[in-house]
Amino acid sequence: MSKTVGVLGGMGPETTLDFFAKVLRQTGASSDQEHVRLLIDNNPGVPDRNAALTGQGQSPGPVLAQMARGLQASGAEFLVMVCNTAHAFQEDILNATTLPFVSLIEETCSAVLRQQPECRTIGLLATSTCLSAGLYQSAFALHGVVTLALEDSALTQFMALLYRIKAGDIGPEVRAQMRDLALQLVDSGAEVLVAGCTEVPLVLGAQDVPVPLVNSTDVLVERTLQYARGFAPLPERRVEIAQ
Amino acid sequence: MSKTVGVLGGMGPETTLDFFAKVLRQTGASSDQEHVRLLIDNNPGVPDRNAALTGQGQSPGPVLAQMARGLQASGAEFLVMVCNTAHAFQEDILNATTLPFVSLIEETCSAVLRQQPECRTIGLLATSTCLSAGLYQSAFALHGVVTLALEDSALTQFMALLYRIKAGDIGPEVRAQMRDLALQLVDSGAEVLVAGCTEVPLVLGAQDVPVPLVNSTDVLVERTLQYARGFAPLPERRVEIAQ
Repeated sequence: MSKTVGVLGGMGPETTLDFFAKVLRQTGASSDQEHVRLLIDNNPGVPDRNAALTGQGQSPGPVLAQMARGLQASGAEFLVMVCNTAHAFQEDILNATTLPFVSLIEETCSAVLRQQPECRTIGLLATSTCLSAGLYQSAFALHGVVTLALEDSALTQFMALLYRIKAGDIGPEVRAQMRDLALQLVDSGAEVLVAGCTEVPLVLGAQDVPVPLVNSTDVLVERTLQYARGFAPLPERRVEIAQ
Repeated sequence: MSKTVGVLGGMGPETTLDFFAKVLRQTGASSDQEHVRLLIDNNPGVPDRNAALTGQGQSPGPVLAQMARGLQASGAEFLVMVCNTAHAFQEDILNATTLPFVSLIEETCSAVLRQQPECRTIGLLATSTCLSAGLYQSAFALHGVVTLALEDSALTQFMALLYRIKAGDIGPEVRAQMRDLALQLVDSGAEVLVAGCTEVPLVLGAQDVPVPLVNSTDVLVERTLQYARGFAPLPERRVEIAQ
């Protein structure tokens, strides 16, 4: 009997759908009963993560906390969240439930180090909010890996692309622009690219770039199945910090 | 602010994914925040509906009831279930929560009558369990519409196809066999076909058959969005019947 997964989703809905589809593909089940149970809260009403951290909107923390409590009430045994940027608010989730929380950031970082142990410089495609919060940079710095990120007008262009993807545009123009941004990071010295925003893999694939691309959604899918099936020990709950 | 939808799913997971994808497509949102909130319990551990009704397995009723309670606890404001056959156990769901329950069977029947008001004979592609429970037949009979269904070896073949689809086989052979079964119903006099099993639309489309095809998943997607957005009044709770 596998563990029930609680999924904090809806940020955006397309990336949650992408995650769900990939979990089913990777499960390789031959009957309904071999699949893993997923409780998905596809909540598109989570306040905008980017607006919140720039002081232009309310914090998504309380909504994420309420979602986490609901997932626990419905039977979730551990939590995952299909949005890199929202991990800036993960303390709210940890404080809301007693469940283990699988960090997309930490899992992606570990996957990069496992897959590319010689890598010293990664190129990170992530939102301005995710960058400001330093989520990936601090995780990689612990292992002596330098993080290169988009800056200034390139970052502005990246953010505009994300909101086009969220509006359903995954056409050739968006794909070409995303590839160009990724190549800028390679030109700056990135040995590995990290798609550290769950919208990125909707328009950028390994075939588009000349260096290895680690996709945070794929990492989360793989690790979610391993945890659900008991093939890996769930992360320990850290001591909770009063806020 | 739209209503939060509770989705009883996982029967099978692919049809729940299909439903989720179609809800996103039909929403036509231009930002995360315009989407509808879906709480999805993708529970592949619901006991086999067909085995239960033939006395070869435990009833899915208690598990469905527990799922419904969990969805209500997480904030669902009404419930839908992405599985026709499981509607044979809908009393267990109604007795478990105080939420309105949108019946896939009743909605599909209404959609057929709305789209094809002259129709007097429908051809129903549904599981043996769904047929034994008489769910569609009684709903259509109220409106003087005769239901033709697969029988004997054709029904056995249909059931074998469903389990192949559940195992991930949606290839050309499965598609061809499903089309042949549908055409048998047309040959017997069906003026409209009803895909009354959520696996059927994964392998059969309107282009495959010479009469109108009403797809229960599509109906549920459309009605779910109408109810969530307040464009249609939710079904009234019937008086609960002690079991």
